[in-house]
Amino acid sequence: MPHTTSSDAIELDPISAALGNVLSLLRADDRGEVADYIPELSTADPSLAGLALASTNGRLYTAGDADSPFTIQSVSKPFVYAIALADHGLEGVLAHVGAEPSGEAFNAISLEPGTGRPANPMINAGAIVTTSLVIAESPTERFDRILGVLSAFAGRQLDVDERVFESERSTGDRNRALGYLMRSAGSLVSEVDDAVEVYFRQCAVLVTAKDLAVMGATLANNGVNPCTGDVVIDTTVAEQVLTLMATCGMYDFSGEWLLRIGLPAKSGVSGGILAVSPAQYGIGLFSPRLDERGNSVRGVEISRVLATRFALHAMHHTERTAPVVATTSVRADLSVVTVQGDIEFAAAERVLLVLDDVASGEATRPSVIVLDVERVTKCHPVAIALLDAMAARLRARHVSIVVADPLRRHIVPSASNVAASVDAAVAHADQLMHG
Amino acid sequence: MPHTTSSDAIELDPISAALGNVLSLLRADDRGEVADYIPELSTADPSLAGLALASTNGRLYTAGDADSPFTIQSVSKPFVYAIALADHGLEGVLAHVGAEPSGEAFNAISLEPGTGRPANPMINAGAIVTTSLVIAESPTERFDRILGVLSAFAGRQLDVDERVFESERSTGDRNRALGYLMRSAGSLVSEVDDAVEVYFRQCAVLVTAKDLAVMGATLANNGVNPCTGDVVIDTTVAEQVLTLMATCGMYDFSGEWLLRIGLPAKSGVSGGILAVSPAQYGIGLFSPRLDERGNSVRGVEISRVLATRFALHAMHHTERTAPVVATTSVRADLSVVTVQGDIEFAAAERVLLVLDDVASGEATRPSVIVLDVERVTKCHPVAIALLDAMAARLRARHVSIVVADPLRRHIVPSASNVAASVDAAVAHADQLMHG
Amino acid sequence: MPHTTSSDAIELDPISAALGNVLSLLRADDRGEVADYIPELSTADPSLAGLALASTNGRLYTAGDADSPFTIQSVSKPFVYAIALADHGLEGVLAHVGAEPSGEAFNAISLEPGTGRPANPMINAGAIVTTSLVIAESPTERFDRILGVLSAFAGRQLDVDERVFESERSTGDRNRALGYLMRSAGSLVSEVDDAVEVYFRQCAVLVTAKDLAVMGATLANNGVNPCTGDVVIDTTVAEQVLTLMATCGMYDFSGEWLLRIGLPAKSGVSGGILAVSPAQYGIGLFSPRLDERGNSVRGVEISRVLATRFALHAMHHTERTAPVVATTSVRADLSVVTVQGDIEFAAAERVLLVLDDVASGEATRPSVIVLDVERVTKCHPVAIALLDAMAARLRARHVSIVVADPLRRHIVPSASNVAASVDAAVAHADQLMHG
Amino acid sequence: MPHTTSSDAIELDPISAALGNVLSLLRADDRGEVADYIPELSTADPSLAGLALASTNGRLYTAGDADSPFTIQSVSKPFVYAIALADHGLEGVLAHVGAEPSGEAFNAISLEPGTGRPANPMINAGAIVTTSLVIAESPTERFDRILGVLSAFAGRQLDVDERVFESERSTGDRNRALGYLMRSAGSLVSEVDDAVEVYFRQCAVLVTAKDLAVMGATLANNGVNPCTGDVVIDTTVAEQVLTLMATCGMYDFSGEWLLRIGLPAKSGVSGGILAVSPAQYGIGLFSPRLDERGNSVRGVEISRVLATRFALHAMHHTERTAPVVATTSVRADLSVVTVQGDIEFAAAERVLLVLDDVASGEATRPSVIVLDVERVTKCHPVAIALLDAMAARLRARHVSIVVADPLRRHIVPSASNVAASVDAAVAHADQLMHG
Repeated sequence: MPHTTSSDAIELDPISAALGNVLSLLRADDRGEVADYIPELSTADPSLAGLALASTNGRLYTAGDADSPFTIQSVSKPFVYAIALADHGLEGVLAHVGAEPSGEAFNAISLEPGTGRPANPMINAGAIVTTSLVIAESPTERFDRILGVLSAFAGRQLDVDERVFESERSTGDRNRALGYLMRSAGSLVSEVDDAVEVYFRQCAVLVTAKDLAVMGATLANNGVNPCTGDVVIDTTVAEQVLTLMATCGMYDFSGEWLLRIGLPAKSGVSGGILAVSPAQYGIGLFSPRLDERGNSVRGVEISRVLATRFALHAMHHTERTAPVVATTSVRADLSVVTVQGDIEFAAAERVLLVLDDVASGEATRPSVIVLDVERVTKCHPVAIALLDAMAARLRARHVSIVVADPLRRHIVPSASNVAASVDAAVAHADQLMHG
Repeated sequence: MPHTTSSDAIELDPISAALGNVLSLLRADDRGEVADYIPELSTADPSLAGLALASTNGRLYTAGDADSPFTIQSVSKPFVYAIALADHGLEGVLAHVGAEPSGEAFNAISLEPGTGRPANPMINAGAIVTTSLVIAESPTERFDRILGVLSAFAGRQLDVDERVFESERSTGDRNRALGYLMRSAGSLVSEVDDAVEVYFRQCAVLVTAKDLAVMGATLANNGVNPCTGDVVIDTTVAEQVLTLMATCGMYDFSGEWLLRIGLPAKSGVSGGILAVSPAQYGIGLFSPRLDERGNSVRGVEISRVLATRFALHAMHHTERTAPVVATTSVRADLSVVTVQGDIEFAAAERVLLVLDDVASGEATRPSVIVLDVERVTKCHPVAIALLDAMAARLRARHVSIVVADPLRRHIVPSASNVAASVDAAVAHADQLMHG
Repeated sequence: MPHTTSSDAIELDPISAALGNVLSLLRADDRGEVADYIPELSTADPSLAGLALASTNGRLYTAGDADSPFTIQSVSKPFVYAIALADHGLEGVLAHVGAEPSGEAFNAISLEPGTGRPANPMINAGAIVTTSLVIAESPTERFDRILGVLSAFAGRQLDVDERVFESERSTGDRNRALGYLMRSAGSLVSEVDDAVEVYFRQCAVLVTAKDLAVMGATLANNGVNPCTGDVVIDTTVAEQVLTLMATCGMYDFSGEWLLRIGLPAKSGVSGGILAVSPAQYGIGLFSPRLDERGNSVRGVEISRVLATRFALHAMHHTERTAPVVATTSVRADLSVVTVQGDIEFAAAERVLLVLDDVASGEATRPSVIVLDVERVTKCHPVAIALLDAMAARLRARHVSIVVADPLRRHIVPSASNVAASVDAAVAHADQLMHG
Repeated sequence: MPHTTSSDAIELDPISAALGNVLSLLRADDRGEVADYIPELSTADPSLAGLALASTNGRLYTAGDADSPFTIQSVSKPFVYAIALADHGLEGVLAHVGAEPSGEAFNAISLEPGTGRPANPMINAGAIVTTSLVIAESPTERFDRILGVLSAFAGRQLDVDERVFESERSTGDRNRALGYLMRSAGSLVSEVDDAVEVYFRQCAVLVTAKDLAVMGATLANNGVNPCTGDVVIDTTVAEQVLTLMATCGMYDFSGEWLLRIGLPAKSGVSGGILAVSPAQYGIGLFSPRLDERGNSVRGVEISRVLATRFALHAMHHTERTAPVVATTSVRADLSVVTVQGDIEFAAAERVLLVLDDVASGEATRPSVIVLDVERVTKCHPVAIALLDAMAARLRARHVSIVVADPLRRHIVPSASNVAASVDAAVAHADQLMHG
């Protein structure tokens, strides 16, 4: 069959071209076997290989069979976990399913002694519990909610492959066993048949590598779909889901995956892999041949090459591109400290160091510092508290602060001198010093 | 006893004061028990509690008993793992010890079927193998290297508590068992007594919460000690060590720890915890009472409060403070695209989008774009390749690029038009357009 | 409540009186808890304690609450295993359920890697498979067969406690989990609901300590109920069932039980214990309070005392009471070797030794030996072969044998001299020697 | 090499010939591999096959390479367990090593949670503990005691194969690991090196199939070597050792072995198997090729054929050869009840039934019964108590007993009428009735 995809297009963007190169490099790898424990999955074309990368700025790059549909299978787990977290909060969910990598296979049957909880929501047992936690009046409504959320993550209406669903349902005794086991242990509270039925249906939702990339970019983008702009889940839930993917997403290969590739990820037995470069990218991969742990052989290899070539490892850090804080000496006796961007703890620490430096300089004694916060986009509570404490400390050292804050956002709550612009602040500082 | 520490000092910096507040809040928590399986550890004063935070810019903030010495115990594991990685590379080390969280206790005895490898270097079995991998002529030399590296991480000469060492050695049969088990499985190749002896000695090295903070900051700072400036290990090793701490550092609490607190970390049975906010901070905590998993009760609680208040969770992302790329329209028909900072894949993607936008604008056809890379600090190979591909693509669309690059760093290798400054580039562009 | 039982009767037989003594001794032991995981079981009167001993000669001795009814629970397992063995043979059953003690609890969920078989038929998983192996057209018919066989073992028509059955069914999710797990692994081939339903019903059959004693005596008596004379199962099946009870009958206490008490046994969570002294006795015990392994506390203690006092340990052996072979010297030159009873290998060996001795004596050369087999009850094939080989060997040494065998059973097939009585044989021998 | 053994001798006894037949049948089976984890073992000649059967009456039958020496390995375990039981008693030994089949391999490393005990003395961990429990002043003395006892069991002085010992010692790290693990858990109290060294040495003792047969016959014969007449261990210890062999002797094949073959047994990695038919035979087998569980392939097959052909299964029972009790009516009004052999509980029960029958007959009222115990060899306490209770019961029914007991052994303690012979007893009875 023809693999006509965007990567073969005449005027190809350089990034899609780069993805195409990686894909070509690994297309010849024919190790592994198509999953056959769900009969319908075994009919997949083993030669397929697709790759997509979606940016948090909403751009999409693809290569190979990025539009070939396949059933989402276990890649649905992090998204349904997101719904459960939204419905019950972290504590509510942790009461029913743990967050511990188990070092076990995807279909492991061990439950935590004492609590009866499955180890984590990325193995089947945990995922069945998670699905049952989605609040709904009926199994039908529960599945509709799940399909709605998956669609919102993907930015388009998704559908179910009914043949795979039927195949999965008719061979799903091990999952039913997990259900009854957890019901007997108290971690699963709904009817087993209902929970398992919805779970099978959620696994049979059809997606493409492109969909996975957008779904991942939505997680990377704090829960906001960068293509549609929809707020799918809130920031905290997105962070929690990414953490679980980091520690538990690749079954008993999770640790080595994070070490080598460094991206929170989730794989499924149909050959899909979703990987996320937090704050930056969602990556969707699809190739049906699996290794003995149930991960797509080419998917893992492509991820490895991509992560290395594109330097995407989550623990890889570069210097900050631009300073959040700058100092300008207006005059020998007056400094303006300009702060910009989001101010969280680390940024606040830097501002404090600059303020301390400026206040310790000869020029500013006895003196005033103008703190320009006009370009501050957000200010975290810890930063507000630290800036306020620093202001108090400077006052004790007889250094005053004039805040230039046109929006009057009370970034330094205790500051009595607040001006509407830097110029007005400088004028006010002059008054304080010489007036 | 008096807990005179920096946090009680007259003129306290706001960050140390904030740490002091967190510590006061949790000092009353007296749950847990001092470790007693090594007899000498049981003599620790359970009331002690210290906290230190070291920044990658070299600043240190402390509260409580941050200068109280205690034996490093398992917190030594990531650092010795770093030496093994430096000596043998990732593949060389993975041949002997895995990277998979096991969901098991610190002293678990299970080895990977088939390979005989311990699950990961953060449990005792794996740490004994790691220690044996440190290249040396003799056990004495091996320990000397380890002590040297630990000291370099801490930025001061560290010593051994000989009484704890003797106590550990005389009660260390379970660790000897692990050693013989691995030797029989082939994952440990040195003499058991030698390996275990050095391991016990490494566990008995005395540190303070302040030391742990600096050691962590060195990992956060890509292997460079931010206080001394010493390059202790290289960047790749630091990333690998942090990944292992993220997935395996807190024993069978690792998954929940990363979910709740979000920092790569390592704990020890003497009550120490080391946590790292990558690229930003090292955090050292000390309080001897342990929970049933062997983690410091107050250490975990303090970490939880700190991570929440200071928004340090690794999966928490803020918007980029400042753009890496800016466009200036010099004239209706000439744009200057200015790039600054480190250019890796994500930055390169943004530059490409800007170049594409500019090239698609009315004004620039037929036309020239000036690409100003003067303030680029580093340029990753993938970025060079993408910029070059983009330049070629623009040429195909009859848009030329003039690179302003005083250092002639060949950031766009195929570019034939390179100028020594933006002004010179603009002049050259004029020539191309109208000349 | 009054414990009026046979042991309090005026003219009590000495054995019932001895049982009563043992029971009195241990009635005060009130350790343990009545099972509560099946709600209906928790209503049992914890003070009850009954004991019965049934002999393979059909006598019954009782003490205490030997007539109090309780549900048979897991004590049904060996009997249903017997039906499965009768229906499919040992290999047919071993294909679905193993015979290995697992060292695990009664409700353990582990299956044999590779085959998916439960470890043995005495744990729940194995028992569910066993039940499903009982050949029947429908679940109803299957249960009717089981109830019929249990009744034949007990020698009276048994019934079901419907309330316990309903209670068990409504709380039996763990057993359903086991069912689905085994169905997914291929060891259970019937519908899970059907198998589990019949299993729950079989567990709810009402019995008394007296019933258990008779059921055990039937196993001890090679499958023939010694009270009714019914052949319930054949000898080989009885042996196989007793072996499984010896290695796996008391859950994870099986090894220590056999070491201390030495009787194949099976316990159930309602407080029943069935123990068997092979060839001799069935013992039924009932007392509802269980230890942490699910065995009746007083039942275990009473068994221990009984086994010690009555010297019932299966590995305890006494000298043979009477010789199976005797020699009579009819005259200086003629010996009669008389063999009696069942002749298996060990008896045959003794006969051979005697024949060899006699043939080596002075008197009998050249000579004849009369072999009197009139009182031989059975002769095992190996014995026939050995006797025949010995006869050939004697002939080679010029010693003839005249067999006195009125029934002409061909116990020495190659013997040409067979007489209808010892007298006739002696006469024939005379002829051979002097005629 | 020539396999000249007794089974090829000219005038072969029929039993040795039968053994020879079984051996010939299975000699062609060349499945399995010679053990290679101890280097020196791998040099064994895989074609060797020997078989020996020793009777508790002291006869020995052999076939094949029954005189070929091999190291005893794990077959030493039950015998050293016997010494430990003799030194410390059952409770003393159970405090350090359990009696539970574990379903695990011979070198399993799991210890019982809570107690730290190895599961049983037939796996390596348990055997190392057992060895350390042999009371001695030094390791040398400990080994000397062990070698002495093994020699007493075999009936000849045994020696050590020093090359195998050295080979085992130099590759025994897994056993050292087990030692340290148990020392750390408290179940092993001696020095690890000492315990392991003696254990390796005990494993390297040279035996033949013939030796194993005699050693087994000694266990079968209540601890008395039937060839030498030496009392090696006492009866209770022999029973306990046989029980452990029944449940745990064949590693994770123990359950199926007992089911199929029905003999307490122990196998070793050099290819030896010791099986015991309690009260009757010891069987020694030797053939070096092992199956994947570490049991001799041909050894298991030969045992299976032997057990079936010779009907040796421990749960196989035949009718009693001769009655222990007989009644003779001396006259219409006087019965003599003759009891012979060992009288334990079951025999006593039968005597009671006979006495009851006789006393209930018309003839004997008012009356006397003569109880003839002249040929009673032993009388167990329970039997004495029951006979005495029966006598009291008869007295209450106005039936007197006159005991004919020339040895005055007080078999019926409360009997006031005791005569020195049956004739005297009958005379006394006459007096009582008519006098």
